[in-house]
Amino acid sequence: MEQNIFHLQYAMDTFYFLVCGALVMWMAAGFSMLEAGLVRSKNTTEILTKNVALYAIACIMYLACGYEIMYGGGFFLSGIETVDAAAVLKEFSDREDGFTGGAIYSKASDFFFQVVFVATAMSIVSGAVAERMKLWAFLIFAVVLTGVIYPMEGSWTWGGNSVFGLYTLGDLGFSDFAGSGIVHMAGAAAALAGVLLLGARKGKYSADGKVNAIPGSNLPLATLGTFILWMGWFGFNGGSVLKLGDIGNSNSVAMVFLNTNAAAAGGAIAALILAKILFKKADLTMVLNGALAGLVAITAEPSTPTALQATLFGAMGGIIVIGAIITLDKLKIDDPVGAISVHGVVGLFGLLLVPVTNPGSTFSGQLIGAATIFVWVFVTSLIVWAILKATMGIRVSEEEEYEGVDKSDCGLEAYPEFT
Amino acid sequence: MEQNIFHLQYAMDTFYFLVCGALVMWMAAGFSMLEAGLVRSKNTTEILTKNVALYAIACIMYLACGYEIMYGGGFFLSGIETVDAAAVLKEFSDREDGFTGGAIYSKASDFFFQVVFVATAMSIVSGAVAERMKLWAFLIFAVVLTGVIYPMEGSWTWGGNSVFGLYTLGDLGFSDFAGSGIVHMAGAAAALAGVLLLGARKGKYSADGKVNAIPGSNLPLATLGTFILWMGWFGFNGGSVLKLGDIGNSNSVAMVFLNTNAAAAGGAIAALILAKILFKKADLTMVLNGALAGLVAITAEPSTPTALQATLFGAMGGIIVIGAIITLDKLKIDDPVGAISVHGVVGLFGLLLVPVTNPGSTFSGQLIGAATIFVWVFVTSLIVWAILKATMGIRVSEEEEYEGVDKSDCGLEAYPEFT
Amino acid sequence: MEQNIFHLQYAMDTFYFLVCGALVMWMAAGFSMLEAGLVRSKNTTEILTKNVALYAIACIMYLACGYEIMYGGGFFLSGIETVDAAAVLKEFSDREDGFTGGAIYSKASDFFFQVVFVATAMSIVSGAVAERMKLWAFLIFAVVLTGVIYPMEGSWTWGGNSVFGLYTLGDLGFSDFAGSGIVHMAGAAAALAGVLLLGARKGKYSADGKVNAIPGSNLPLATLGTFILWMGWFGFNGGSVLKLGDIGNSNSVAMVFLNTNAAAAGGAIAALILAKILFKKADLTMVLNGALAGLVAITAEPSTPTALQATLFGAMGGIIVIGAIITLDKLKIDDPVGAISVHGVVGLFGLLLVPVTNPGSTFSGQLIGAATIFVWVFVTSLIVWAILKATMGIRVSEEEEYEGVDKSDCGLEAYPEFT
Repeated sequence: MEQNIFHLQYAMDTFYFLVCGALVMWMAAGFSMLEAGLVRSKNTTEILTKNVALYAIACIMYLACGYEIMYGGGFFLSGIETVDAAAVLKEFSDREDGFTGGAIYSKASDFFFQVVFVATAMSIVSGAVAERMKLWAFLIFAVVLTGVIYPMEGSWTWGGNSVFGLYTLGDLGFSDFAGSGIVHMAGAAAALAGVLLLGARKGKYSADGKVNAIPGSNLPLATLGTFILWMGWFGFNGGSVLKLGDIGNSNSVAMVFLNTNAAAAGGAIAALILAKILFKKADLTMVLNGALAGLVAITAEPSTPTALQATLFGAMGGIIVIGAIITLDKLKIDDPVGAISVHGVVGLFGLLLVPVTNPGSTFSGQLIGAATIFVWVFVTSLIVWAILKATMGIRVSEEEEYEGVDKSDCGLEAYPEFT
Repeated sequence: MEQNIFHLQYAMDTFYFLVCGALVMWMAAGFSMLEAGLVRSKNTTEILTKNVALYAIACIMYLACGYEIMYGGGFFLSGIETVDAAAVLKEFSDREDGFTGGAIYSKASDFFFQVVFVATAMSIVSGAVAERMKLWAFLIFAVVLTGVIYPMEGSWTWGGNSVFGLYTLGDLGFSDFAGSGIVHMAGAAAALAGVLLLGARKGKYSADGKVNAIPGSNLPLATLGTFILWMGWFGFNGGSVLKLGDIGNSNSVAMVFLNTNAAAAGGAIAALILAKILFKKADLTMVLNGALAGLVAITAEPSTPTALQATLFGAMGGIIVIGAIITLDKLKIDDPVGAISVHGVVGLFGLLLVPVTNPGSTFSGQLIGAATIFVWVFVTSLIVWAILKATMGIRVSEEEEYEGVDKSDCGLEAYPEFT
Repeated sequence: MEQNIFHLQYAMDTFYFLVCGALVMWMAAGFSMLEAGLVRSKNTTEILTKNVALYAIACIMYLACGYEIMYGGGFFLSGIETVDAAAVLKEFSDREDGFTGGAIYSKASDFFFQVVFVATAMSIVSGAVAERMKLWAFLIFAVVLTGVIYPMEGSWTWGGNSVFGLYTLGDLGFSDFAGSGIVHMAGAAAALAGVLLLGARKGKYSADGKVNAIPGSNLPLATLGTFILWMGWFGFNGGSVLKLGDIGNSNSVAMVFLNTNAAAAGGAIAALILAKILFKKADLTMVLNGALAGLVAITAEPSTPTALQATLFGAMGGIIVIGAIITLDKLKIDDPVGAISVHGVVGLFGLLLVPVTNPGSTFSGQLIGAATIFVWVFVTSLIVWAILKATMGIRVSEEEEYEGVDKSDCGLEAYPEFT
C-alpha cells in the first residue's frame, strides 16, 4: 500500500511538471504575438518565422546536447522503455529525506520542462534585433545559444557545476529561483551583443539626436502576447519549485502563483501611472512592458516575499523598465520591443532583490552570479555575432530594410490586404 | 503513512485550485480580445489599456482589502513562511467529516483563485461603457468595485455573512454555484449604472428612433476572445466545486466541465438559428454572445443538471440574450459588446434555473438573492459613477469621441498602418 | 486507508482527463485562428462562424448519439447523481490488475475528453472547403459527420467493435494511439470528398495550368492558431495514454509530451529548410504546416519512439507535407489551408510509422486500418455531400464568391475598417 502512495506522488509531480511545461511552451506564442504586434507590418511575417523557428531550434538543440551540458545525462537516444517502476519505488523507500524530500518524477517530464525554458531565453533575443537582422544569421545564432551558450551558464547555476573550476556560485550565496538572471538577463545579454553589432533601425535616431518613435502595427496582438506571457509565467515560476506533492511544497507553489500574479499587477499599474506622469498619456506599450517587468523582477525569488512585497517588487520593476527604455534610447541602443530593458535591466534588479526576502542568498553572491552570467553570455554571443557578421553578414541591405524583411526573407506579406 | 495520503490530497486540491485559477486569469485575455474586436479601431488601444489595468487593479485591491471584507483573513502582509505542515496534518486527522469532507489546501491557492474572480466581474463593465468613457474615471471605479462593492455582496453570499444583519441569503435557499449572479449579474449591474449616467455613443441612435449598427473592427479577435472565455470557464465553474480530491468531488468537477461545455454549445447553436430566422444571416457576433450566454446561464448550477439539461439551459440563454440585446437597443441603452445582456439578463436567468435541478435552493431564495445583489451593486455603483461624473467627469468630449479615445487617452493608435 | 488511496487515484486520473480535454477544446480556437488567418479577409467572418458552430455541433451530436455509437453507454440523459462512490471503491479493490492496471475515473471526464476529439476531426474539414462552400450545407454535414460517420469508424478502432462483423482491426495489429488516422486522416477524407464535389476557388487554377497563390490575409492569426494547436496537442496525445496515476503511466504521459513537442519542432525546421531550398524563401505558411505535420505524424504513436526518432518522424512529416501540397495543386485539388495534406497524407504516414517503434502493431494491420477508415469516411461523406449538392447546393454563387461569403452568409465584415 505504501508503494501505491509512491505511485501517486510520482504521478502527481510528473503531471505538475507537464502542466507547468505546457504553460511555458505557451510563452513561445506570447513572445510571437508580442513581437509581431510591436514591429511594423512589413516585418511581421519575418518575426513570426523567427519565433516559430527559434522555438523549434531550441527544443532540438537542447535535446541534442544542451541538457547534457547543463545537467549531464541526455535523453535524445533513449525512450520510455528505459524506465523501471520497481527501481523507482526502491528509490522512494530508500531515501532518507522521506516523503517531504526532493521530488521523484519522470525524467521525461523534467526534460520537457527544461526544454521550454531554453526557448524563452532565445525568444528574448528576437525582439531586440527585429526589423533589420538577417533571418538565417539569427537562426544560426539560435543554434549556438540554445545548444551551448545557455547550457554552459545553466550548468554553473542550476546545474551546480563550478565556473571553469574556479568558483561555485551556489557556495557564494547565489540564488535564482526561476531565472531572472539565468534565463531573462542571459537572453538580454545575447540580445545586447547582437544589437551593438547590428546598429539601430534606419530612421530611429535622427542626426540631431532626436529619437523617433516607430509605432507597433498591431497593439491587440501585443496585448494578447503579454497576457499569454503572464499566464505562461505561472508555469515558469510555479514549476520551478520542482515539487508539488507534499504540503510544504504545494504551499510554495501556491505562493509562487499568487506572487507572480501580484508582481505583474504591480508592474502594470506602476508603469501606467509613471507613463501618465511622464508622457501625459496612458501608454499601453509601457503598461505591457511594466507587467512583464513585474514578472521578471519576481522571477528570481517568487516564494519568500509576502504578497505585498511581491506587488511592490513588481511595481519597482515597472518603474525601472520605463527608465531603462528611455536610457537605452538616449544611448542609441535600438530595441524595438524593449526586451533588453524588460529582461536585462529588470532581470538584474530581480537578482538583487533576492537577499531582501531570502536569507539563504547574499548580495555579493547575486552580484558575482549576475556578472558571471552576463560576461559569459555577452562575450560568447558577441564572438558568435561577430563571426556571423564577418562571414554571411547579420544585417539586411538598406533596400530590404526599407521594403521590409517580409518580402526579402519570407516572400509573404503578413497582411497583404490591409496595408 | 496516513500522513502521506493527507500530504497528497492537500497537494492535489491545491494544484486543482491553481490550475483552475490560471484558467480564470486567462479570461482576462478573453475579455480583452472580445472587447477589442467589438469596438472600432479608433478606440481599441484604450479598451486594451482598460482591460490590462482593471485586471491589475482587481488583483491588488482584492489582496489589499477585498478578501478581508468577503471572507475575513487577509493575506497581503503574510507569506509562505506562516504555513505549518504539522498543524495541517493535525487538521486532517482531527476532522470529523473524514477524507471525503471539505477540502484542506493552501490558503494561497484559494486566494489566487478568488483574486482572478474579482477581475472577471470588473471585466464585464469595461465592454458596456466602451468607446466613450474616460479612462481614469473608469479606473477609479474599478478600485471601488473590486475593493469594496463586489467584496461586500460576496460576503453576503459565498462569505456567508448576513445582509446588514437583516437576513442571511443561504438560510433563504439562495444558491449560486460559481457566480451567475454574484460575479456576472453583479458586473452587469455596475455596468448598467455606468451606462445610464454615460449615455449612448454619438450616432448609435438616430433622432427618428433608428438603431444604427456600429460594427466591431476585428471579428477574429472577438472570436478568439470568446474561445478564451469558453476555455477559461472550465476553471471558473470547475474550480468552484472547491475540492477535487475524492471520488464524489472529482465526479462533480468532471460533470461541471462537461455541462459547462454543453451549455456553451447549446447557446451558440440556438443563437445561430435564431439570428438566421430574425436577421436572415448567420450573425457571428450573436453566435459569440450566444455561447457566452450559455456559459453564464449554467454558471449558477453546473453540477446538478444532466448534459441534456445543460445544453437546453444554454440554448435558452442563447435565445434570451438576442432578445435582451434587441430590447436594450429599443430602450436606447447602448452597450457596445452586449455585456449587460450576456452577463446581466442571462445571469439572472441562470440564478432562476437553479431550483430546477438543485432541490437545495428555492425560487424565492434566488429572487431575494438576485434582488439583493442587484440593488446593492447598482445603487452603490450609481453613487460612485455620479460622484465621478460630478467631479472629474466620466465622458470624453465630443471631439475626443469623434477622433477616438485612443488618441486622447493613450496617444497610440492600435493599428497605425491599417486605418 | 486503502480506500483513500483509491479516492486519490480516481481524482488524479479524472483531473488529468479534464486538463487534457480543456487543452483539446482549445484546439478549436487554434483551427479557427489558423483558418481565419489563411483565407482572404472577405471570407473571414464566415470561416469563424463555421468553426464556432462546428465545435458546438460536434459537442451536441456526440453527446446525443456519437458516444453511444462509438463506445456504447450514453451520457446525455444522466447526470452526476448516478455515480456511487462505494461501487467505485469496490471496483478498485476487486480488480485483478491492481493499482497499476487500467484507470478508473469519472465517466463524465472521459466523456468530456472524447467530445472535444470529435470536434477536431470536423475542424479539419472547414479549412479545406473554405471560401466557397455554403455555410448551412457545411453545418448539416457537420451534424452527420460528428453524429454518425466519425463515431462509426471510432467504434471499429478505439471502440473495439468489428467492422460490420467482418474483421476486427485490433486483431489485425492495427494501432492508432491518439488518432493520426482515426481523427486526422478521417477528417481529411471527409474534406477531400467535399472538395472534389465542390471544385476549386475561382482564380486558383488558370486555364493554362498555372497555380495562382491566394495569400492568407492575416499571418499572425495563422501563427497563433498553430501555436494553439501545438499546445492543445499535448492534451490530445498526452490524454490518450488514458491513465496518469501510476509510475508507468505517468512515464508514458511525460514521454508523449516530450515526443509531441519534438516532432512538431522537427516538422517546422524540416519544412523551413525545404521551403528555402525549393522556393528560395522562408515561407512561413510552410513552416506552420510543417509543425502541424510533425504533430500529425507522431500522433499515431507518441509513446514508444525515442526523442530523436520523434524529431525525425516529425521532420519527415514536414517534408511530406510540402510535397503533398504541391502535388494536390498539380491535381487541381484546391485546399486553401493545406488541411488534406497535413491531416490526410501525413495522417496516413503517421499510421505507417507505428510498427517502426511499436512491436504490437503490423504494417498490414495499419494498411487495412487506414483503408477501412478512409473508404468508410470518404464514401459516406461523398454520399452526404452529393445529397446536399443535389438538394440545397453546396457552393455559393459566383457573385457571392467574388464578393466574399462574409457578406452573403453572415452579413458582417471581419475587418470593416481595414479593407
